[in-house]
Amino acid sequence: MFLPHARPFAARAPRPERSSFRTLVPMFAAIATIAIAVPMSRAESEDRPNIVVIFCDDLGYGDFSCYGHPTIRTPNVDRMAAEGLRFTQFYSAAPVCTPSRAALLTGRLPIRNGLVGGKRRVLFHDSKRGLPADEITIAEVLQGAGYATACVGKWHLGHLPPYLPGAHGFDTYFGIPYSNDMDRTAAAPEGRAAFLDPKIAYWNVPLMRQDSIIERPADQTTITRRYTEEAVAFIRKNASKPFFLYLAHSMPHVPLFRSPEFENRSPRGLFGDVVEEVDWSVGAVLDALRAEGLSEKTLVLLTSDNGPWTTFGVNGGSAGLLRGGKGSTWEGGMREPAVAWWPGRIPAGRVTAELACTTDLFATVHGLLKIPLPDDRPLDSHDITPVLTGAGPSPRRDVFYYRDSTLMAVRRGPWKMHLITQAGYGQPEPVEHAPPLLFHLEHDPGESHNVAERHPEVIDELRARIAEHRAGWTPPPSLLDD
Amino acid sequence: MFLPHARPFAARAPRPERSSFRTLVPMFAAIATIAIAVPMSRAESEDRPNIVVIFCDDLGYGDFSCYGHPTIRTPNVDRMAAEGLRFTQFYSAAPVCTPSRAALLTGRLPIRNGLVGGKRRVLFHDSKRGLPADEITIAEVLQGAGYATACVGKWHLGHLPPYLPGAHGFDTYFGIPYSNDMDRTAAAPEGRAAFLDPKIAYWNVPLMRQDSIIERPADQTTITRRYTEEAVAFIRKNASKPFFLYLAHSMPHVPLFRSPEFENRSPRGLFGDVVEEVDWSVGAVLDALRAEGLSEKTLVLLTSDNGPWTTFGVNGGSAGLLRGGKGSTWEGGMREPAVAWWPGRIPAGRVTAELACTTDLFATVHGLLKIPLPDDRPLDSHDITPVLTGAGPSPRRDVFYYRDSTLMAVRRGPWKMHLITQAGYGQPEPVEHAPPLLFHLEHDPGESHNVAERHPEVIDELRARIAEHRAGWTPPPSLLDD
Repeated sequence: MFLPHARPFAARAPRPERSSFRTLVPMFAAIATIAIAVPMSRAESEDRPNIVVIFCDDLGYGDFSCYGHPTIRTPNVDRMAAEGLRFTQFYSAAPVCTPSRAALLTGRLPIRNGLVGGKRRVLFHDSKRGLPADEITIAEVLQGAGYATACVGKWHLGHLPPYLPGAHGFDTYFGIPYSNDMDRTAAAPEGRAAFLDPKIAYWNVPLMRQDSIIERPADQTTITRRYTEEAVAFIRKNASKPFFLYLAHSMPHVPLFRSPEFENRSPRGLFGDVVEEVDWSVGAVLDALRAEGLSEKTLVLLTSDNGPWTTFGVNGGSAGLLRGGKGSTWEGGMREPAVAWWPGRIPAGRVTAELACTTDLFATVHGLLKIPLPDDRPLDSHDITPVLTGAGPSPRRDVFYYRDSTLMAVRRGPWKMHLITQAGYGQPEPVEHAPPLLFHLEHDPGESHNVAERHPEVIDELRARIAEHRAGWTPPPSLLDD
Repeated sequence: MFLPHARPFAARAPRPERSSFRTLVPMFAAIATIAIAVPMSRAESEDRPNIVVIFCDDLGYGDFSCYGHPTIRTPNVDRMAAEGLRFTQFYSAAPVCTPSRAALLTGRLPIRNGLVGGKRRVLFHDSKRGLPADEITIAEVLQGAGYATACVGKWHLGHLPPYLPGAHGFDTYFGIPYSNDMDRTAAAPEGRAAFLDPKIAYWNVPLMRQDSIIERPADQTTITRRYTEEAVAFIRKNASKPFFLYLAHSMPHVPLFRSPEFENRSPRGLFGDVVEEVDWSVGAVLDALRAEGLSEKTLVLLTSDNGPWTTFGVNGGSAGLLRGGKGSTWEGGMREPAVAWWPGRIPAGRVTAELACTTDLFATVHGLLKIPLPDDRPLDSHDITPVLTGAGPSPRRDVFYYRDSTLMAVRRGPWKMHLITQAGYGQPEPVEHAPPLLFHLEHDPGESHNVAERHPEVIDELRARIAEHRAGWTPPPSLLDD
């Protein structure tokens, strides 16, 4: 067992903004510091798989070929699924970007820490705040466990120095600090026109390395390729030690850009070109792992931050058979394509309808490394190793659907109850439902047939589950409005 | 080359209703009769693959796992796709049953021969007519070429003796002659209730062997299993000679039934149980081919007759990301899941967006057997062998979307123009569009973004294509109303 008592983040040099939490665990810090200096045995090394997360931006449930898209060709993702495990009921923790990313890295619903929308739904280029210092990220955990850690791609958890990846457990960072459609220049036309005929000069998005801006505006036409090169170089450099790679593509979020090699290549048009370049990138990462002999030592998880931005027409993706898209708490807003790959540990070619969520990566990584979970805070994370290996069912039974700080819906087992519904991102008024809407998601994944009247007992059970979820804690105010 | 001049059906004993056509080809008949008596060389045998068509009933584009359904588990179909070719732009020739089946077997749009709806959209248990005797079916072609031919399952091209499978080229027949929801008994409740709590006694559907009724009402709970057993027995019996098996499941058409082994097995509920039994059946057929050493000698095509009957709620299927369902000429009504399998000839694991249609099986079979196509009638059939083998693009450029005898829409390349739209089966008034609606189906498979205003030249091209399609022939009256 690897360092059962250590809070691995404590092995890092303290940073001022984190001191209040760090002072609680000086003893653990000392143990961890000593332990990681000792070379590891082979068995220990096998217990410490590399972790690679490939996170897409606004890619919908239906946008990969293996999820049924008819004209987007994704042979690399399809191969990854054929060699691994494809999830069909896997969720992001929020229907928009910033809270979804915070949740992935911390294993906590963003309502726990204020990384949810208030007046603003996500962080912007003029935001003052970001992911709080006392949040524990997977990167910190793994960095503390001796892993090399890299963030490549879109961050969107605070672009000012106290919030950048280096402050949250990443040794290195290369990417854009917020969404690729933020910080418009005077050259940009008003409104949607900028998205429909996008030019780099319309945006002033910076490309950063560590805490420095190295290019502004970022040349987004080559950004997927450059992220990929960075990721592959990191894998090669760290082939002999455990690593954590968080590759957060800024595509296929509008404005859409792709390399010249992918121009006019996809039958699906521009959006398809962009997804096909992301697919190429997935292939390049897996090929690098194969070439370095790391396939059987590496867990790779591919998923997306939220549903497709359908309001952008053909420049937005598809949620497949699911209802709604980005910004909404209909399934299309939060159910994601997700493929897990780890030859030798994850049996090849399976499809699973077991419940899972991006927040589960946190507990799963702890479980794989046999590191105890922090016990000083509520978590929303389950170790889904049994689902990955096929050993058993998912420990997750619930999904909570928040839109900003409002709990809109809850899922328990196959049942989903909507208290409030609202169409996608940037669309008008919410509708409260009394009685709530009830859908059996496994019979009716498209949320077409409200069966509330026939199942009052399920409504009661779900209401009780919400009461339990809400008991004993008060959500902090939104950090996104400053 | 096998019998280049023969009209293979002519090798059969004449039947009175066909005499007017048969008298035209006495010389061919004589040649064919002699030729099939001569034992074939090995090379000839390799040119004569077995043909197996597995045709589902009301299964939607999104109802197999490999087409993106989250909770219907179809490992056998998924394996078939992994070993073969999965189509993403494959069409039935009509959005309802009778015309779709006529088209599959004859290679002709049903508007050519009157097998399209007038007042009635399909044949019923009290219909007097059926597929005309002078139509040439694939079964006749293959029977004439020395194949053993079997129809197992739902026929729905006329239940009276002149129209049954035996009159159209099938040596043997075992199945139900029309839809499984026809001929209600007095025991059945009114309207939809019979479908939602189905009992065998609600229907008086006969099960037939050859021209005789052997069971009435057919026990539909075991019907998928019994069809499968019949199909497997046919394969085993004919392992040493070429055969054509047309396995037309009567599921998952409402009322839904499945064997006790499949009860309450699928997370998708009753509909899922039924599709999972069909999936089992697909596996059993492919296993029988493998066991007999016929994998590399057999082309298997799996598809569906029309889109899902979505008006039946969770008892109907899903068109995935496509719009509409059964009965409509939106994509969901006519685009079908389709998997082709022929180890050694069809490379494994490909997905294709090439255009194809059920009517193409007719020309493809002729091409594979090097039999010239009939030249005395218009065909709507293209030899898609290049798509199957990966040798080249599809020769098909168009799809014509008929609802009954009305041309509602046309597709050419990626463009689809709707002249008239109407929601699914049994729903109210058609809506004429002037100007027409135009969708780029490869960019916008969900038909959400009408781009007619931006592409008047495409509208013109499609109108010209319709004029060309209509020139020189007059559709006969509907045969479905008598």
